[in-house]
Amino acid sequence: MNKRVGRSTIELASRPSILGYAAYVGKKEHMGPLGRFFENYDPDTTFGMDTWEKAESELQRRTFSLARQKAGLENDRIDISFAGDLLNQCIASGYSSRENGIPFAGLYGACSTMAESLALASAFVDAQFACVASAQTSSHFCTAERQFRFPLEYGGVRAPASQWTVTGSGCCFVGPHQDDKVSVERICFGRIRDLGVCDINNMGSAMAPAAADTLVQFFSDTGTCASDYSAVVTGDLGEVGSEILSRLCVMEGYEIPNHLDCGKMIFDPEKQKVKAGGSGCGCSASVLCGYLLPELERGRLTRILFMATGALMSPTSFQQGESIPGVAHLVVLAAPKNSRK
Amino acid sequence: MNKRVGRSTIELASRPSILGYAAYVGKKEHMGPLGRFFENYDPDTTFGMDTWEKAESELQRRTFSLARQKAGLENDRIDISFAGDLLNQCIASGYSSRENGIPFAGLYGACSTMAESLALASAFVDAQFACVASAQTSSHFCTAERQFRFPLEYGGVRAPASQWTVTGSGCCFVGPHQDDKVSVERICFGRIRDLGVCDINNMGSAMAPAAADTLVQFFSDTGTCASDYSAVVTGDLGEVGSEILSRLCVMEGYEIPNHLDCGKMIFDPEKQKVKAGGSGCGCSASVLCGYLLPELERGRLTRILFMATGALMSPTSFQQGESIPGVAHLVVLAAPKNSRK
Repeated sequence: MNKRVGRSTIELASRPSILGYAAYVGKKEHMGPLGRFFENYDPDTTFGMDTWEKAESELQRRTFSLARQKAGLENDRIDISFAGDLLNQCIASGYSSRENGIPFAGLYGACSTMAESLALASAFVDAQFACVASAQTSSHFCTAERQFRFPLEYGGVRAPASQWTVTGSGCCFVGPHQDDKVSVERICFGRIRDLGVCDINNMGSAMAPAAADTLVQFFSDTGTCASDYSAVVTGDLGEVGSEILSRLCVMEGYEIPNHLDCGKMIFDPEKQKVKAGGSGCGCSASVLCGYLLPELERGRLTRILFMATGALMSPTSFQQGESIPGVAHLVVLAAPKNSRK
Repeated sequence: MNKRVGRSTIELASRPSILGYAAYVGKKEHMGPLGRFFENYDPDTTFGMDTWEKAESELQRRTFSLARQKAGLENDRIDISFAGDLLNQCIASGYSSRENGIPFAGLYGACSTMAESLALASAFVDAQFACVASAQTSSHFCTAERQFRFPLEYGGVRAPASQWTVTGSGCCFVGPHQDDKVSVERICFGRIRDLGVCDINNMGSAMAPAAADTLVQFFSDTGTCASDYSAVVTGDLGEVGSEILSRLCVMEGYEIPNHLDCGKMIFDPEKQKVKAGGSGCGCSASVLCGYLLPELERGRLTRILFMATGALMSPTSFQQGESIPGVAHLVVLAAPKNSRK
């Protein structure tokens, strides 16, 4: 059977399943519109640690542990872990994984990491390179803010198109197909797109072309369109990027009336003062594991395109006048057979 | 056929081949003991760019282009690119890949990235997720020095156990098996090991336990030992780490008399004043693509274990008093059949 569909899409014939998953978020995320779906949260954003970076590692550790319990797995049953985050040298993932004794493949996909890690984990299970593989990422407002923008204490005014980094993590364990679990049907790794956006306070605009490119490529590869899915879910394009994605897709002949964006869903922009929405690896990761996967399990969503988007710049490249390259990876998730209406 | 061997090793039954590869280095590397093997180098370490970071992207771009030419491939034949580097947010890889239009999966494995990317590319080809996949990484002395240590202009005195970041890049294109090419037989992703080393000027010590762990795991998984291979090649343990690796392996019952370390091979420690040896993602990448792969093609090496090691700390985690976690990934490379003596 041909595993490649068109230029970029990969068919996972065995339909690997998500055996267990968990989201864990901070206080602000729990107070947002999806708050009732986030049963795991800590009102203390230090997560009991003495630095923000250690807090983010602890956040990953707690999420991993919860997902593992849900999947009913011991560490020695997990063959490989794919993880990454936004921090320099991906320390949230590295430090959170150092005691678990699981082979570790580190990723850097910026905010596309949840889709990238889930795609790789699913591919490894489909190919029988792993019986169980984990996929995880996280972000933390306080680590991201001081690394990418200003020290928290500075209290800078936020630009209108800026987004608020989510304090949250998501983790999935992928294993062989099970009829009563959500399954991964296809994956599509995106190309880097850079249309010259240089505004570090407008990541949505920088990432939207990559999202459009991956989505149009996937539709073209598979001969499907948005209406074949319950929803087309992007990671963290926010208000500005979502608008651009729609327009770019229309230019290519694709309407996406069922578009949802995790960055728009996780916060209330008015009440929570987040400007254009949420962002960060943890945004799409926590919305996936806190809201989308349960909705698929309940059968309220039948089949979705989950596409996380990342901006591949750094503060250094920004200071050197470089524009912001974006990338978007896509995963097709299907509801368990017996839950489908 | 069972694709997993023991706890961590994966058997690539189709034996994917390295269709083309290239190394590209700076002036100092070209002046070292392996200089005559590095036919591609630039005496100008700016590579014609106006910042060191852009220079490192250009280094990757040139290496990719050379490897692609050797493999005789156009970009549209390359299904996926696995790449990463040491820079914050992996900008050398992101920016170098933004024009090539190839689906991009970003990695962060610190100096283990050449083995990690080659393992993933080989796995994707073996599983027929990709017909051709690329694996690439780089490092640059001037970007690494100012990011991880001090501004170059500061002229700090180097500690005795410190290593010199290689300015270099390596790139491999992996495709279906060909009898006249080097092939990838097995891969093994390592676990993170952290024995509490906190000295940022002694990365060899921090990474050696991870190297020993992966190597012993691989030997145990496969029932092989060092004498089954022409050489056991590590990435950049340097003088100090190599000594520790040997001792740790002996403690586990394995001698490795045929151990080579790219960090020890690439520079002359006396004449080139590099203290404990070379380091950086580009160290093992350039030695692999400049020296080891040609030696395998010529049949002077029959089968080697290529194991790149990475230290997963950041300047921030170091300043917060954290110890340095290490990781090591392993790839088994075999000479073309017709070249074997």
